[in-house]
Amino acid sequence: MTLPAEFSLIARHFRPLAGEGALNLADDAAVLDLPPGQQLVIAADAMVAGVHFLPDDPPGTIGRKLLRTNLSDLAAMGAAPLGYLMTTAFPKGTPDGWVADFAAGLATDQAEFGLSLLGGDTVSTPGPLSLSLTILGSCAPGRALRRDGARPGDQIWVSGSIGDGTLGLAVLHGRLPADGEGFLADRYRLPRPRLALGQALSGLASACMDVSDGLVQDLGHLCRASGCGARLLAADVPLSPAARAALAADSALLPRLLTGGDDYELLFAAPPEATPAVEAAARAARAPVACIGQFFAGVPAVTVLGSDGAEMALPKGGWSHF
Amino acid sequence: MTLPAEFSLIARHFRPLAGEGALNLADDAAVLDLPPGQQLVIAADAMVAGVHFLPDDPPGTIGRKLLRTNLSDLAAMGAAPLGYLMTTAFPKGTPDGWVADFAAGLATDQAEFGLSLLGGDTVSTPGPLSLSLTILGSCAPGRALRRDGARPGDQIWVSGSIGDGTLGLAVLHGRLPADGEGFLADRYRLPRPRLALGQALSGLASACMDVSDGLVQDLGHLCRASGCGARLLAADVPLSPAARAALAADSALLPRLLTGGDDYELLFAAPPEATPAVEAAARAARAPVACIGQFFAGVPAVTVLGSDGAEMALPKGGWSHF
Repeated sequence: MTLPAEFSLIARHFRPLAGEGALNLADDAAVLDLPPGQQLVIAADAMVAGVHFLPDDPPGTIGRKLLRTNLSDLAAMGAAPLGYLMTTAFPKGTPDGWVADFAAGLATDQAEFGLSLLGGDTVSTPGPLSLSLTILGSCAPGRALRRDGARPGDQIWVSGSIGDGTLGLAVLHGRLPADGEGFLADRYRLPRPRLALGQALSGLASACMDVSDGLVQDLGHLCRASGCGARLLAADVPLSPAARAALAADSALLPRLLTGGDDYELLFAAPPEATPAVEAAARAARAPVACIGQFFAGVPAVTVLGSDGAEMALPKGGWSHF
Repeated sequence: MTLPAEFSLIARHFRPLAGEGALNLADDAAVLDLPPGQQLVIAADAMVAGVHFLPDDPPGTIGRKLLRTNLSDLAAMGAAPLGYLMTTAFPKGTPDGWVADFAAGLATDQAEFGLSLLGGDTVSTPGPLSLSLTILGSCAPGRALRRDGARPGDQIWVSGSIGDGTLGLAVLHGRLPADGEGFLADRYRLPRPRLALGQALSGLASACMDVSDGLVQDLGHLCRASGCGARLLAADVPLSPAARAALAADSALLPRLLTGGDDYELLFAAPPEATPAVEAAARAARAPVACIGQFFAGVPAVTVLGSDGAEMALPKGGWSHF
């Protein structure tokens, strides 16, 4: 009996990604042991061509983006990665070389982040390429970072730089001039999950999440989970040199930087007295961090203050699918 | 700040499904403890409207079908369910009532099978409804049933009845007269994961898998994993009364029953001396089982013998997406 093409595709491209516990992707499920005494931390994200990435993005970056957005969720919890499962719905006629490049990108990131494929499913779709990935990680019992621990008086911190992803998408759409090095497009295509920082913040930050749907909207989620208000100082939000250059050319971009998606940085809370420890953790994790405001007792809402001290009016809260 | 519609949709329809460890679906990931001393068993399946289910299937059965096909994977490993994550890509404009019915179906099955939603993602798609579900279960260390343990001389067993799902699809497509009670369509829409049987077979069956892509093709997978051949007696394959009636009306349906998908029964191997124990396990699990052939030393291939003892020619091996 000749095997259907589906199994050949899995064998060629996905089996080489399989790790311990995956049973060579040839069984009904993966079987694995958690590190002794650890809790399981698990999250899932989906991506659809034309919604979460551009259909003509290089195939090697598409799988990596999905893997990295999921790793960013683990980072936000302070967890260490264990492995992942992935389901792929490919349009019929997807070239074999495309799938090979897609898998090669995943292999690169598996090596970089130290995890492997545990299982999944490969199906066809009459619609656009659709991907779903479930990430597994672990952390010490009770040490997972949560969104609901911010307290009035805590400072608001963010890692890295904000707004690059949304500018990168504008560059790829031709609505913004490209920066020389392609830094912005790269930031849109390849998030940098802050795994080391997240783990270093465990036990230190009072609340943490990753910024995926826009800084202001996501800070609003953290406020609602924690039951306090937040005051954000726009001038203190860290920007990359490329974003600074774009903003210098068009100051009207600022609201977009603060509300656009695809940052995948960590947004966290810590009491002021923890500042030296936060800065030491960031240095150890080689992740820049910046204090961008403070939580206060009040209705769970975000106030953004411009450099003139006045409240900024922001056109929309962030990305929504519906 | 008004919350985007996406979060409202999640809060209305999916938050009520969330269980312990899901952190109310309001954090970046779920955090859970495995039952002490157990291994994690984990699998993922995807479904696309028009490929895995009919776009006009009742919404209440669609989520349940995906959950049950995943539970069937746990059953095949002899594992007990813990929880699940689900990502949904809804076409824009999906009516709220549709999502409510979809979620209500999941709630019904959560109660029946004793598990809850742990996390996921809700996105939009310009294509057909696409769903992905990751199921988590557990089993005692080293007790997971595998596909690679069948040995020459072992008997081939299958649970329940074979071919109902593919006939049900034909009924729903109007290519086959409906049976009076709607049994066949129901079998296509709502698989019955054999969880109790799978757990009862742990330590007893030498190999096990679930039949999802057609009995003959899936038996071929088991042969390849185990490195032996299989001889299947078509006359011994258990059929439901509805399938028997369809076959009586059109004997040419037999190959379709043996190769069509959507059975979600357990296919397993056991040495002949284990027969009394297998039958006792099946009785305890309230799952009928039938011996349908035997494994032998030889190339990993399936021979199907008809009631005349001659080898049957089967038109295709089973379902493939590509």
